[in-house]
Amino acid sequence: MKIIHHPIGIIHSPFTDLADMPIQPTGAASAPGTVELFSEYVEGLKDLDGFSHIILIYHLHQARRVSLTVTPFLDSEPRGIFATRAPTRPNPIGLSIVRLLKIEGNILFIEALDILDGTPLLDIKPYVPAFDGHPEARTGWLERTQARLSKTRSDGRF
Amino acid sequence: MKIIHHPIGIIHSPFTDLADMPIQPTGAASAPGTVELFSEYVEGLKDLDGFSHIILIYHLHQARRVSLTVTPFLDSEPRGIFATRAPTRPNPIGLSIVRLLKIEGNILFIEALDILDGTPLLDIKPYVPAFDGHPEARTGWLERTQARLSKTRSDGRF
Repeated sequence: MKIIHHPIGIIHSPFTDLADMPIQPTGAASAPGTVELFSEYVEGLKDLDGFSHIILIYHLHQARRVSLTVTPFLDSEPRGIFATRAPTRPNPIGLSIVRLLKIEGNILFIEALDILDGTPLLDIKPYVPAFDGHPEARTGWLERTQARLSKTRSDGRF
Repeated sequence: MKIIHHPIGIIHSPFTDLADMPIQPTGAASAPGTVELFSEYVEGLKDLDGFSHIILIYHLHQARRVSLTVTPFLDSEPRGIFATRAPTRPNPIGLSIVRLLKIEGNILFIEALDILDGTPLLDIKPYVPAFDGHPEARTGWLERTQARLSKTRSDGRF
């Protein structure tokens, strides 16, 4: 079974290289970026400007291979791909929750960006703490390493 | 540009009908379900059992049309599709954050489910509050209606 998706826009960011990127949005609080939604979808943006955070779902277009275990940036041990956010996934779908600053026409101004410049956008969803916030969640292998997150940058290993 | 994804598993839930489903996982705290990961991907589950919550990304296989504005379950006014979680999206990609109870082989036991039985799974990601938790987020049109969420069920309108 094949599921076919089409880009609905392009994400623009300061990051043109897989190396030296923030590895998650919390490491990139001051990095600005834009989402260019293709004009035929602009009607779908109605009311989105009331949300301070949005979920971007995108195609990890630079992920060229699949690897079911990876050694994450924050770790020295191989972990199952589904226990990481690394890009070498069976379906290279990326997910970031970013702050929405403003919308002008088909351009969304965002910050806190960990996305490669030119990334094809698949979907935008509103971020809703009542659905998406689980502050009590346990985070397994990441628990020992989270404190280092905001200072860690990628090194191009994927 | 076409992006081709393949199901990596199937989500099993008590909900076999688009009507009368919880509309978000917070409305379904006691609904159990399972994720059946196809056996060739089991290696990728290593270390996932340390996480209490996971992000499921799936194909909204019953969404047959695209509509750029919708009148959500919680509202009486048309909203832009990207300001809602409704399924009639340009790319019918669904996202739910669910509690992970245990993993046995290729079966993940989950709860808090708002997903239709038989839904094709595209990706599993660990939920990490440091990346994904934004308790302070503003939620636009939803702010007036969120209190009714846990009591609202779907009515098959999509």
